[in-house]
Amino acid sequence: MQHTLLVDCPDNKGLIYKIAKQLLEFDVNIEQNDEFVDTDNAHFFMRTVMSGLEKPFELQEILQRQLPDANIRLFKKQPKKIVLMCTKEPHCMGDLLVRNEFNEMNVEVVAVISNHEILRSLVERFNIPFHFISHKEKDRASHEAEVHEILSEYEPEYIVLAKYMRILTPSFVARYKHRIINIHHSFLPAFIGANPYRQAYERGVKIIGATAHYVTDNLDEGPIIAQDVRVVGHRFSAKEMSKAGKDVEKIVLANALKLVFDERVFIHGNKTIIF
Amino acid sequence: MQHTLLVDCPDNKGLIYKIAKQLLEFDVNIEQNDEFVDTDNAHFFMRTVMSGLEKPFELQEILQRQLPDANIRLFKKQPKKIVLMCTKEPHCMGDLLVRNEFNEMNVEVVAVISNHEILRSLVERFNIPFHFISHKEKDRASHEAEVHEILSEYEPEYIVLAKYMRILTPSFVARYKHRIINIHHSFLPAFIGANPYRQAYERGVKIIGATAHYVTDNLDEGPIIAQDVRVVGHRFSAKEMSKAGKDVEKIVLANALKLVFDERVFIHGNKTIIF
Amino acid sequence: MQHTLLVDCPDNKGLIYKIAKQLLEFDVNIEQNDEFVDTDNAHFFMRTVMSGLEKPFELQEILQRQLPDANIRLFKKQPKKIVLMCTKEPHCMGDLLVRNEFNEMNVEVVAVISNHEILRSLVERFNIPFHFISHKEKDRASHEAEVHEILSEYEPEYIVLAKYMRILTPSFVARYKHRIINIHHSFLPAFIGANPYRQAYERGVKIIGATAHYVTDNLDEGPIIAQDVRVVGHRFSAKEMSKAGKDVEKIVLANALKLVFDERVFIHGNKTIIF
Amino acid sequence: MQHTLLVDCPDNKGLIYKIAKQLLEFDVNIEQNDEFVDTDNAHFFMRTVMSGLEKPFELQEILQRQLPDANIRLFKKQPKKIVLMCTKEPHCMGDLLVRNEFNEMNVEVVAVISNHEILRSLVERFNIPFHFISHKEKDRASHEAEVHEILSEYEPEYIVLAKYMRILTPSFVARYKHRIINIHHSFLPAFIGANPYRQAYERGVKIIGATAHYVTDNLDEGPIIAQDVRVVGHRFSAKEMSKAGKDVEKIVLANALKLVFDERVFIHGNKTIIF
Repeated sequence: MQHTLLVDCPDNKGLIYKIAKQLLEFDVNIEQNDEFVDTDNAHFFMRTVMSGLEKPFELQEILQRQLPDANIRLFKKQPKKIVLMCTKEPHCMGDLLVRNEFNEMNVEVVAVISNHEILRSLVERFNIPFHFISHKEKDRASHEAEVHEILSEYEPEYIVLAKYMRILTPSFVARYKHRIINIHHSFLPAFIGANPYRQAYERGVKIIGATAHYVTDNLDEGPIIAQDVRVVGHRFSAKEMSKAGKDVEKIVLANALKLVFDERVFIHGNKTIIF
Repeated sequence: MQHTLLVDCPDNKGLIYKIAKQLLEFDVNIEQNDEFVDTDNAHFFMRTVMSGLEKPFELQEILQRQLPDANIRLFKKQPKKIVLMCTKEPHCMGDLLVRNEFNEMNVEVVAVISNHEILRSLVERFNIPFHFISHKEKDRASHEAEVHEILSEYEPEYIVLAKYMRILTPSFVARYKHRIINIHHSFLPAFIGANPYRQAYERGVKIIGATAHYVTDNLDEGPIIAQDVRVVGHRFSAKEMSKAGKDVEKIVLANALKLVFDERVFIHGNKTIIF
Repeated sequence: MQHTLLVDCPDNKGLIYKIAKQLLEFDVNIEQNDEFVDTDNAHFFMRTVMSGLEKPFELQEILQRQLPDANIRLFKKQPKKIVLMCTKEPHCMGDLLVRNEFNEMNVEVVAVISNHEILRSLVERFNIPFHFISHKEKDRASHEAEVHEILSEYEPEYIVLAKYMRILTPSFVARYKHRIINIHHSFLPAFIGANPYRQAYERGVKIIGATAHYVTDNLDEGPIIAQDVRVVGHRFSAKEMSKAGKDVEKIVLANALKLVFDERVFIHGNKTIIF
Repeated sequence: MQHTLLVDCPDNKGLIYKIAKQLLEFDVNIEQNDEFVDTDNAHFFMRTVMSGLEKPFELQEILQRQLPDANIRLFKKQPKKIVLMCTKEPHCMGDLLVRNEFNEMNVEVVAVISNHEILRSLVERFNIPFHFISHKEKDRASHEAEVHEILSEYEPEYIVLAKYMRILTPSFVARYKHRIINIHHSFLPAFIGANPYRQAYERGVKIIGATAHYVTDNLDEGPIIAQDVRVVGHRFSAKEMSKAGKDVEKIVLANALKLVFDERVFIHGNKTIIF
């Protein structure tokens, strides 16, 4: 059984010593260990993967007592329960369903919610419940209330927006703080907003990209988890740029989820620390 | 002796036939040939590299007569005369001077103009004249007038801004239309304006880039010639991002210049067609 | 209706003229046109995408008469009928099934053949016939005879080895000359043969890759269509390298198929010319 | 004043605790800290960057006493003294000379040794002594003896082979164990030996690369420090592939040197651990 310990707190002398001492007293094997000090903000981050931990609650309690101003999290290695949300495009959804089916990610997809019916057939083939919640003739708040009701049934640890093309309200985002992950169809901050491939085409860029990020109140401004790019050229129409971009999107999203679900990501201000 | 023919004009049936017919009558060997039709704008682009052309002026004249609304250019393969402009940073300047010295580009650097003295020693080691034209206590127009005077002596085909950190006026840009090439220290359009690496750092991006483009009146908005990127992470300070970015900048600039000086680039509206 | 014309032949003066003349006489619109001369081998390649062609057979016949030693192919734009072959791994298969389902490639997957049952459930969810042909207790020739029998029913234009982990005999390869495409799990020619990720791990490489190629008699030696890479590091175990490699594999294979099915690829000797 | 501590030893419980305890007792500030356990070989690696260390020798001595089977190294942050060796090609040499001149690397180039005169003029412009030691009419041992004599005068910490095109004997390599760094003009292990770009061209690869590695007795088999790649295509002649490769080579070599000179690299068996 593996556990992962995440600690972050204002930087101070002796932090590694204190934590390492407790881990030794709990007689665990440290398999991976990373620290980083953000010297601009004097903040300390540490991630430790260990085996042989028998009393996780006691460890967490003792560490918290010794480091009262630290943010301490301890995770048992087990699949993350997630709900996927989507609109019409199949590329990220298809990719994640196949990975889920063959246990290629540390994840258990418990449901899909969509504001369109288009992907129902694809999703149900993988024996995942598909909830269609139309946004038509509803205001944003009442649509989200319905979404939230479904989510409440499943109690997911994370919500993954796999090409969900609606903007979430601050109150929805606040309910799932740092637990909603989005794939943005551009190399942020290059082409914020709608139709980034059309924008990229108009601008004549030679490289396009995609960005996976946590969702915060400010659209397209949440902490970035992963990015990648692909070379394009004048022979790519806006539509072909979009097609090429989809390949980048699905890989970037999968990479980001892998990092998050392996508990490798700290959020600090509007940035991520990734071990 | 190689010649390169560039033709662009509104698209029409029979264009390739007409041009190929003339080339056959002039008895040349076609070594490379590329066409592209921008179907959105119904515009035709063709680049032909040929050997054995004995009467270039006649060929150009006949083609122009047959295709009166075409933009026709014919170049003999010979080094492009260029002037480099810079401010303080040595990385692009050093890279270009070494390439120039060892004939690694199809280019002859005839002079360097700078608004600082810092790079004089480096430049003069390569036996290139270095002109220091301070911008201090001058308005933009009079500073540019001095720059222009020096440029007039050398009659360069292209002006390369190798980290020249001043904005050029529209009238200066107009004098050298499509003949000024800049390296922008970011993946455009991501971080327009000053201090892009600080911006990239603040935003927590996972990839940084650089963009070489023609200079037009709109700062950072000219047609893009080449872009490239590099992976960074939370361990990179703003300064380290800047250092990593410099490696990208110098390679992107050199690649862009190679494309331009080999007559591979068409400018059409705000975009480039690159063969 | 679009047609694509592919011509290759020994290089000669006037080739473009002759072809362009015929295209004009058939009154077609040329939408894309690319030529390349391999000057080492004095061989000419040309690809033309046109609309408005009404008599394709006549065009091909006339061109062939005028260029008797040329290899001339003319394709109507329509989905390619393909059969996928696989063994156990789902990543390329899942990716291609989703793309096929949502018409993201110019393709129609008509069947899957496998020497294992593992992927049957995945494939049948997409309503594609799945043929299990065990190789157990059969010699290579009789196993291939059974495969060939199934293939004969479907008459595919291409056979795609989507992680089919058995070596094909020369006689099988000869039957489908230049019509079998494989994804090799390494950056060829780096790690030929079995277990390339283990080899990459042992060698401590910092970048891994994948290669899509035509299958020829010499294992892993066929003409390369597409390659891509991904950065790895000492924290990647051989298993994690393999996982990271799978993402590269599926994208490289899809990219290669797109190039082939759009009739962009010439094979010449052991190399490809790709427009 | 910064110090960097590198520790590697067989893995064991309590290692981080023991080291962190000593660092606390020496009252240093830990600015960066990384550990890695190679679980295949049960070997522990740790790198710590600290400030405020006043008694480095005492720290090293105490740690060595407490961890008798560990390999413990402690470095003060100061430029590395290096000698560059080259043959004829200017691209890596020019790049490193410019970086050295403008203090862009943590390095002091004290001399250049070459078996050709070609780069003398370039090197001497940067006021670096250039030693020409012809290999003509000498056996390998006597040529290396002369090289070694020059090296002895300078006592460099590292020897960088910046396109030095001669094979070193095992006895020469043994004298400078893990202190010679080479740039190989290919994506190792793809094209071992001479003329890799010709090999890449013949094989029709779509990506070329370069590899920086420590020199060991087995040609091209030493531990890899850094690799990078660039996309090429059928339009690249063998010569153009070589040109494109040179840009990769100089950046990869500079990146590798930065890692080594910042004391980020452990060598373990034939692999590197890089923090």
